[in-house]
Amino acid sequence: MRLSVYLRCVDLLETDGICRVSSEGLARRFDLNSAQIRKDLAAFGEFGVRGVGYQVPELKRHLRSILGLDETRRVAIVGAGHLGQALADYRGFRSGGFEISGLFDNDRSKIGTRSRTGVTVYDVARLKELVIQREIQIGMITVPASAAPDVARLCVEAGLRALLNFAPARLQAPPGVRLKNVDLKINLETLSFYIAGSSPRRRREEWPQTPSQPRSHRRT
Amino acid sequence: MRLSVYLRCVDLLETDGICRVSSEGLARRFDLNSAQIRKDLAAFGEFGVRGVGYQVPELKRHLRSILGLDETRRVAIVGAGHLGQALADYRGFRSGGFEISGLFDNDRSKIGTRSRTGVTVYDVARLKELVIQREIQIGMITVPASAAPDVARLCVEAGLRALLNFAPARLQAPPGVRLKNVDLKINLETLSFYIAGSSPRRRREEWPQTPSQPRSHRRT
Repeated sequence: MRLSVYLRCVDLLETDGICRVSSEGLARRFDLNSAQIRKDLAAFGEFGVRGVGYQVPELKRHLRSILGLDETRRVAIVGAGHLGQALADYRGFRSGGFEISGLFDNDRSKIGTRSRTGVTVYDVARLKELVIQREIQIGMITVPASAAPDVARLCVEAGLRALLNFAPARLQAPPGVRLKNVDLKINLETLSFYIAGSSPRRRREEWPQTPSQPRSHRRT
Repeated sequence: MRLSVYLRCVDLLETDGICRVSSEGLARRFDLNSAQIRKDLAAFGEFGVRGVGYQVPELKRHLRSILGLDETRRVAIVGAGHLGQALADYRGFRSGGFEISGLFDNDRSKIGTRSRTGVTVYDVARLKELVIQREIQIGMITVPASAAPDVARLCVEAGLRALLNFAPARLQAPPGVRLKNVDLKINLETLSFYIAGSSPRRRREEWPQTPSQPRSHRRT
């Protein structure tokens, strides 16, 4: 997660035309911990120069490589309801090395249709066949909570080893399978906290405006 | 964000029938930092007993109160496309003190319709009127990235002071407004990292199965 945060920061530096940065500079600018940055990056081999820092393009290339974003990862979305359709068309995924290979559903009225950007809805019975044929690696679960455990099992049987669960259900993954439960409510709760005004120190700086992600990793 | 994580953990303890927990117990079980837990909770007044710990029901009540979840927060969703509809019907929000008061759009064919669970789509021109009338506090932005800055401005003009942006666009909030950009891609990147297998230490324990959120705050 921290590596993704560093990548977001490096993207912003690049947008701002900055071509060299030290771990201290990165930490100061995005309110991160410089020792943590050095430790995290050093774990994947030394490539910064002591006292000079990192070349931004090199750092970006390196982070994308560590994150496995230098090759396209294909994704299957199981559940072609509103959330599945929304994620199939979500532009944020496309820009960063992910390709939505198909939507899957068991609703006959949906099978054969396409999302707004052209992602086809397939019969979920064909999941395994298409996972193999298209080398799909990641499954997104966007079915109702009640159906989520069965769909997770189906994904594992189809050969998917990395699952992202959007259903508000607590899922257990079998050994060897990476499963991440996406908690959409946590974002609302953070806002509620600030509305409630119970923050012990209400400095405006405590809430980053942009980018929001890096700040959540700050040390207090 | 950490307080929400603690609340998730306490919910899990309650589900498992555990009625007392120490900060060390909480830290061990969910791989958190016990000193950080004590510090975070102490910032809102002492209520654990040294050497004994926290009563789970009391801790839960306290966390919900700090997070402002002991009263219902009303939410307006601007953008009645697939993502807006999905979020309007997302069961995860309902269980935790949030109420979706309305969907808003400028598409005449959508105005007056309802989401699957019965949330009405209103003309976005009525946003301010309904924000005041229904005491809506939070705005969710679920329009395409190109429309997001205008919609954010509209929300602020309508009196919303807490915004959650789901559009893949970098938004700036004016002073006094809390804006959180939700980064859906970061979850995919984390999975990609594990698929890529470039993790320096590939212990299975590094990736929590459930709950996924607490582990992202672990110290390494």
